[in-house]
Amino acid sequence: MRAVDIIAKKRDGAELTREEIAFFVQGYTREEIPDYQAAAWLMSICWRGMSRRETTDLTLEMAHSGDLLDLSEIAPHSVDKHSTGGVGDKVSLVVVPLVASSGLTVAKMSGRALGFSGGTLDKLESIDGFRADLTTQEFMDQTREVGLVISGQSLDLAPADGALYSLRDVTGTVPCAPLIASSIMSKKIAGGAKAILLDVKVGRGAFVATTNEALRLAEAMVEIGYDAGRRVTALISDMNQPLGYAVGNALEVREAIDTLHEGGPSDFRQHCMVVAAELLRLGGLANSADEGLDKAQAALASGAAWEKFVALIRAQGGDADQVKNPDRLPHAPLVQATPAPCSGYLKELDARQVALATVDLGAGRARKGDSIDHAVGVIVHYKVGEYVEAGTPLFTVHANDEHKLALATARLLEAHTFSDEAVQPYPLFYKRVSSRAILGRRPQA
Amino acid sequence: MRAVDIIAKKRDGAELTREEIAFFVQGYTREEIPDYQAAAWLMSICWRGMSRRETTDLTLEMAHSGDLLDLSEIAPHSVDKHSTGGVGDKVSLVVVPLVASSGLTVAKMSGRALGFSGGTLDKLESIDGFRADLTTQEFMDQTREVGLVISGQSLDLAPADGALYSLRDVTGTVPCAPLIASSIMSKKIAGGAKAILLDVKVGRGAFVATTNEALRLAEAMVEIGYDAGRRVTALISDMNQPLGYAVGNALEVREAIDTLHEGGPSDFRQHCMVVAAELLRLGGLANSADEGLDKAQAALASGAAWEKFVALIRAQGGDADQVKNPDRLPHAPLVQATPAPCSGYLKELDARQVALATVDLGAGRARKGDSIDHAVGVIVHYKVGEYVEAGTPLFTVHANDEHKLALATARLLEAHTFSDEAVQPYPLFYKRVSSRAILGRRPQA
Repeated sequence: MRAVDIIAKKRDGAELTREEIAFFVQGYTREEIPDYQAAAWLMSICWRGMSRRETTDLTLEMAHSGDLLDLSEIAPHSVDKHSTGGVGDKVSLVVVPLVASSGLTVAKMSGRALGFSGGTLDKLESIDGFRADLTTQEFMDQTREVGLVISGQSLDLAPADGALYSLRDVTGTVPCAPLIASSIMSKKIAGGAKAILLDVKVGRGAFVATTNEALRLAEAMVEIGYDAGRRVTALISDMNQPLGYAVGNALEVREAIDTLHEGGPSDFRQHCMVVAAELLRLGGLANSADEGLDKAQAALASGAAWEKFVALIRAQGGDADQVKNPDRLPHAPLVQATPAPCSGYLKELDARQVALATVDLGAGRARKGDSIDHAVGVIVHYKVGEYVEAGTPLFTVHANDEHKLALATARLLEAHTFSDEAVQPYPLFYKRVSSRAILGRRPQA
Repeated sequence: MRAVDIIAKKRDGAELTREEIAFFVQGYTREEIPDYQAAAWLMSICWRGMSRRETTDLTLEMAHSGDLLDLSEIAPHSVDKHSTGGVGDKVSLVVVPLVASSGLTVAKMSGRALGFSGGTLDKLESIDGFRADLTTQEFMDQTREVGLVISGQSLDLAPADGALYSLRDVTGTVPCAPLIASSIMSKKIAGGAKAILLDVKVGRGAFVATTNEALRLAEAMVEIGYDAGRRVTALISDMNQPLGYAVGNALEVREAIDTLHEGGPSDFRQHCMVVAAELLRLGGLANSADEGLDKAQAALASGAAWEKFVALIRAQGGDADQVKNPDRLPHAPLVQATPAPCSGYLKELDARQVALATVDLGAGRARKGDSIDHAVGVIVHYKVGEYVEAGTPLFTVHANDEHKLALATARLLEAHTFSDEAVQPYPLFYKRVSSRAILGRRPQA
């Protein structure tokens, strides 16, 4: 077998065998196949796509390229959740303790902010002492003893995906459904998840711009999960405007805390309830969406979810007093509200521009390894479709520097557009893709 | 400008600007853009194609990446010829001296055998003493003094093409019309040619399999030439079976010598006449195809073409006595004719298999730098459409080793297939593409 022949085969639109995919992934991981051949191969996959069988084979090959976590003995009812990345997406902070308080185990490996996407670990590190760098032993122990954990990746999970992802990043081969789907699923499978909820974001603040693309990606991931013996449900949710009001690490933690106390923005709270209900169904604790929602509401109302959040923070070394008294979370020296320049219905609130404004402020990372300021960020005060009165506060910037404050304010003003006529609000979710929906479909041979 | 953005732009099907193409070609040549980004870029070009304007910009950028030869002062009426590579293609050996004897200057840089394609330089090196490694000064001096030269490339012509071609070879990005067209034309333009005849081979023994592909490639090259201010005509010619009878270096030289004496296989002689006539038209010495053919016939009949061939060999240090007495050319120790296994019309004579048989015998190169045996090769005795009587010699193998002889014989027997019913011979040419044919077309803006 030669790498160049496998590239040519995919270039000509043929389906690769499992052996050919294994040869390429293993050869690249062992550095026997050079970057330039892998780059050409990835581009030929963007061009010709991959069948369902090829995508699953690629996923499993990458999942098996490194360590595999086995949670089956310590947590038979574990669930996992993955978001494709959005702006103001602090869903895990609410949903993970919520479903854990209902009896599911959640052993979640999360990522860090990069580009315009935030990262759950960075948000949690707003809390003094919180450790996101658990060892594998600590990770397993906490899973067993506390029933939930949110940490960075300590094991060498799916190293083939890591290597290929770095290459995709610099060769224009990121936006490609089978490559995105196999990348996400390879890590989830290597991480030991048996039941996975995928939150596929679509819109200006997501890397997928259209619901059709999002649907293709969601279906690809659900199919991979099904073919690999995992229970997977995907929700396609809106990311044209930020989720909730807060964008920025400590500001988002505070919004999550409010939400765990039955407060917080209604769009964000509803989003969390739907995600939690799906996780409860996937984990076998609810038989229907309604039952899942009822249980989720109950866990929130009883304070059980909040208590589990405190337990999570405490277990990972975080200052519980700080989350109980959120005024003690990091706060920025400059806080400035900007009034609405005109009256009208809010027509657009460009999530990507809001995210870039927070990156300007220092809340995000342009490059891996950049340091961030946990205190800075933005609070928006309106959502698309709401009527805004001129002169009322439109958004509030939390900054550590006058110049950055001015830059972010200008960008945020541009991110808001208004209409004299009534504007439809965005839906929270566009579609749900479950394993059952694809059960009838045979995998392409 | 960033390489990854240019890759993504082409991946998404957009047209690249001249500046973007220059940025990529120059960056790659200076080793500032890595192989893996160039590989992804090349595959995205295979996917999305290139407009006429992009292809010309790519060609000129590559042509200007190194030295440029200027023949305008020493040879205002110079012509050049390029074949895309075939089996038994010794056309230059006849046509170059023929048109030079008619008054045109031909300063030709040729290549060597690689894979199943032969190389004009290797053929000429069958002649004792012949030097294919002229310095630039020798090349220019001989052009001025003798009016013709066939040598390897001494100048650093189009190094960007050289680098990109090596990468294409190992990344599955060779068969792509704009990349092939720009690669060929960049070298021809850097070599100083003002009028170029392209012989585009199509069929089993060519790297282009269909006349449609060949036409696309021919049109792309003629368009580039036109847009770059060169006179270019392309002929699309058959390469399903070998050209002439002889395949192998010294055997082909002998066939060319026969042809220069008005002998040789009729298909090969006719092919040479048509190519020579086109060159005479391109060089301004004939106003029509018929006039070109008349002049070409006359140059052959008068012996002027033959004398010019001897002058060429002598000028480059070759043994003129050897070409005057071709029995003194290298000959193989084992010469064996194989009789036809059955009677019938010759239906196919697979040029690629014939070429691979000669590579087996040692006449070609599997890899750059391999040494070759000038004496070995194959003479076929029939062309497609001719009736073959069982038991008469079908082909003759010239070998230096019994084992290789047996291997080649087996392969050659498989290369011949027969039919009881009459078979149409292949045409020599399928199509002619001239600048005039595309004059009416505006370049795509």
